[in-house]
Amino acid sequence: MLRNARGRYVSGSRLAAGLCLTRAAIHKQVVRLREWGYDITGTNRKGYRLENSPQALDTDRFRAASLGRPICHFPSLGSTQDELKERALAGAPQGTLVLADEQTSGRGRMGRRWLSPRGGLWFSLLLRPAIPPAQVPALALVAALDWAMVLRRATGLPACVKWPNDVWIDNRKVAGILTEMSSEMDRVHWVVLGVGVNINNPSPRGMTPPAASLREMTGKPFYRQALLEDWLKRFAGSLRRYQRDGFSAFRRDCEECLSMKGRTVVCETAQGTVAGRVEGIDGEGRLLLRTAAGLRRFGEGAIRLKKGDERA
Amino acid sequence: MLRNARGRYVSGSRLAAGLCLTRAAIHKQVVRLREWGYDITGTNRKGYRLENSPQALDTDRFRAASLGRPICHFPSLGSTQDELKERALAGAPQGTLVLADEQTSGRGRMGRRWLSPRGGLWFSLLLRPAIPPAQVPALALVAALDWAMVLRRATGLPACVKWPNDVWIDNRKVAGILTEMSSEMDRVHWVVLGVGVNINNPSPRGMTPPAASLREMTGKPFYRQALLEDWLKRFAGSLRRYQRDGFSAFRRDCEECLSMKGRTVVCETAQGTVAGRVEGIDGEGRLLLRTAAGLRRFGEGAIRLKKGDERA
Repeated sequence: MLRNARGRYVSGSRLAAGLCLTRAAIHKQVVRLREWGYDITGTNRKGYRLENSPQALDTDRFRAASLGRPICHFPSLGSTQDELKERALAGAPQGTLVLADEQTSGRGRMGRRWLSPRGGLWFSLLLRPAIPPAQVPALALVAALDWAMVLRRATGLPACVKWPNDVWIDNRKVAGILTEMSSEMDRVHWVVLGVGVNINNPSPRGMTPPAASLREMTGKPFYRQALLEDWLKRFAGSLRRYQRDGFSAFRRDCEECLSMKGRTVVCETAQGTVAGRVEGIDGEGRLLLRTAAGLRRFGEGAIRLKKGDERA
Repeated sequence: MLRNARGRYVSGSRLAAGLCLTRAAIHKQVVRLREWGYDITGTNRKGYRLENSPQALDTDRFRAASLGRPICHFPSLGSTQDELKERALAGAPQGTLVLADEQTSGRGRMGRRWLSPRGGLWFSLLLRPAIPPAQVPALALVAALDWAMVLRRATGLPACVKWPNDVWIDNRKVAGILTEMSSEMDRVHWVVLGVGVNINNPSPRGMTPPAASLREMTGKPFYRQALLEDWLKRFAGSLRRYQRDGFSAFRRDCEECLSMKGRTVVCETAQGTVAGRVEGIDGEGRLLLRTAAGLRRFGEGAIRLKKGDERA
């Protein structure tokens, strides 16, 4: 009822009548909503007014802020990635965004399960970038860098980029990016960029590395819409820059907030496992590792701290 | 009728009766078929027998020679690539091969038209390789190298690899390869490898570079089935090697039969046009060009001889 009032006051007695509750029960629910992060003003004379909401997404407002396309918002989906891939095949334009309040079978890298309960941001964004297919994987790193910047500004915490596709805060995984693409030799048909950010949701237990939501780390709720808008705005600019200048335009920023820099890690790739010290990122988004056999570049792989180098 | 007889003789009078022609007309057609490369034995007593045929494909025989899957053979298709992509999405296994005697809307790189009249080999092969997406484009180079080897053996002509995806003989384009893929960050869902080889067909006129068929270059017809079987056998081995050792296992062979080596070329990429001398191929299948600004590597692009360096 408060949302439908669109910023106008609704009296306590009207809420009570509309919801078949006593006025005391209405007050109790408003207190609970405030705990949940809903910003509700209340005055004795006028009633209650919804100022801002961590859950609600005003999908109309997105049209301007995003890459220029309407948003497809679902209360629940199996996977935003699968939903958007179907739309991509049917010819949907760049900027099409599919968002779900919860995913019942969300996926991470390599087909791993990604838990996506209500309270987090789970969405997929369709891109049709003018870049060769080999440059697509590093787009995940650019997207992660933009999320690290958005989360630093919102939380004040030292969010950093975990190569090649995650955002960590204090050694805990807060966000993950996934890219899927369809391409031919020198041309990309489409990229579906999947994003999961733990915001107000309880984060999954027993993960390696441990996961955490912003709410768990700070004790307070965050506005999903504001975070998404910030990121979309930032990423629209990054995409333009990436198409023009490639990854080298992001290299310095990326190295500045790179997780595990200078630390000894183990990198697992399809070709085997290699240990080395993280030196940085090269101009194509590849990880630079100082190994026993010299400096090596990794275009893909998964890294973790080597045993004995696990302090933060 | 001869093909249906499966290697048995058919008398001239039976052919005449079956086709409503005189025996003299049958003889005339047999002469014409022989000109077209059909190997037909004729004796006065027994009649005619089809020994071998440049057109016919015995799709049953392929099952053993190919990557182990049945062949889908069509008299005519819009595009074998489109047909196989649909099957890939529906979960078809590695080795599925779609072949058409003619394509009515065949495609080359960058969506360009590829003329595919009867007499050539036009097919698409489904792969689900265990390689990262960045290694997929160079698979076209491996496939082209295998075709160059098959065509050298069959014709005795100096077939060579034109980076990144063609086979040339005497500066004329004989075959072209196309890859399309669906992938996520470190995993390839599928690759559809499209192959077109000008064999007994008239080649398209007025192309740059000029095209030619094997028949046009040698004056004689070739057996499509034998060429396809040779290539499939060779490529099945190459694919195993590529998954294990990457492109570096093919680098030397590829440089040995590389077209335009040592010549000054113009390379057009999405980032612009660069002139340089072709030095070779690197361990990832990228072209090495000696430019005014030093040695540069190109992962994608189209090259042509620079004006003034156009002699063969």
